[in-house]
Amino acid sequence: MPYVNVKITPENATPENKAKLISGVTNLLVDVLGKNPASTVVVIDVVETEDWGLGGLPVEEFRKKRSSA
Amino acid sequence: MPYVNVKITPENATPENKAKLISGVTNLLVDVLGKNPASTVVVIDVVETEDWGLGGLPVEEFRKKRSSA
Amino acid sequence: MPYVNVKITPENATPENKAKLISGVTNLLVDVLGKNPASTVVVIDVVETEDWGLGGLPVEEFRKKRSSA
Amino acid sequence: MPYVNVKITPENATPENKAKLISGVTNLLVDVLGKNPASTVVVIDVVETEDWGLGGLPVEEFRKKRSSA
Amino acid sequence: MPYVNVKITPENATPENKAKLISGVTNLLVDVLGKNPASTVVVIDVVETEDWGLGGLPVEEFRKKRSSA
Amino acid sequence: MPYVNVKITPENATPENKAKLISGVTNLLVDVLGKNPASTVVVIDVVETEDWGLGGLPVEEFRKKRSSA
Repeated sequence: MPYVNVKITPENATPENKAKLISGVTNLLVDVLGKNPASTVVVIDVVETEDWGLGGLPVEEFRKKRSSA
Repeated sequence: MPYVNVKITPENATPENKAKLISGVTNLLVDVLGKNPASTVVVIDVVETEDWGLGGLPVEEFRKKRSSA
Repeated sequence: MPYVNVKITPENATPENKAKLISGVTNLLVDVLGKNPASTVVVIDVVETEDWGLGGLPVEEFRKKRSSA
Repeated sequence: MPYVNVKITPENATPENKAKLISGVTNLLVDVLGKNPASTVVVIDVVETEDWGLGGLPVEEFRKKRSSA
Repeated sequence: MPYVNVKITPENATPENKAKLISGVTNLLVDVLGKNPASTVVVIDVVETEDWGLGGLPVEEFRKKRSSA
Repeated sequence: MPYVNVKITPENATPENKAKLISGVTNLLVDVLGKNPASTVVVIDVVETEDWGLGGLPVEEFRKKRSSA
């Protein structure tokens, strides 16, 4: 019965990897809390990098700045 | 003044049906809680099926597995 | 299979009214989109008025200001 | 370490303005709460107008109705 | 840099189990997507059973009905 | 008409500081995007430190580990 929302930027967000996230999160909730997998909902949001901010910057700029530091 | 977020997969998510969800949810909050419709916000997220997990599987696979059981 | 999150301030948020919101939202999704009620999840968040802002003010102050206008 | 989610309709949601929102929200959390900008996450969701309801109507219709009132 | 929100009802939601969820989700994102754990944020919301609806009912009633079926 | 959700841990989360966050976020949306403050909603969630994970650890442990590094 849990609900899990995963927000990630698009790198490596293939259907295969999304399926791994869904099964991995569901198994974790079964193992740790004894939840019923049949009513465990996982929603993945792929967020464009211009919509993701870190350190006060869009994440692409944050990465450039950090790697050039 | 309430805020409601509705997450659904794309089946039947036409503009007409979205408008029905918006009016239906708003009327419900007015009727049950006496809320002011003018400040009731409804946000609908249409989530692709590869991004929705149920029973540890992407929902398309979950449906196939269930219907073949 | 939908997921609905309802955020409201505490006025009238009794268990009875919450149950009405849960059944009302679920019925709406069944009627408008043909969703399966058994996998429709509704989560209600009761948000304290000091944590809810409208018009740039905590909602209690917003209400006072409006009613005295 | 805060997490901020900003949901807006598409008007004026250019990359430049999104960058201003990200820096503005981050600076606010630094100034008011003393948060560390390096672990402050901001996620912006641009929501299509047919998916945004206000006053029981999709927001485009709400605006038309109000401007014609 | 991912953000994960986990919503659960209170059963077994001890600090120890929450710590296991946090480490498990973070490891999963590192393993599947190569994310940086230092900027992976996990927020757990414990939701009271009267605020969680399933099958059109508050979840306590849903469980009673199912177990008596 | 925007909706903003701010999630923070409890340090310094006084009513006065929450009011500053509400006005600051609202002003930012007015200044950057020309939004109407009267329909700008801000919801603040104060999240207990045991419910907030960073670097794979509950945030209290993450802070201890970092400060002793």
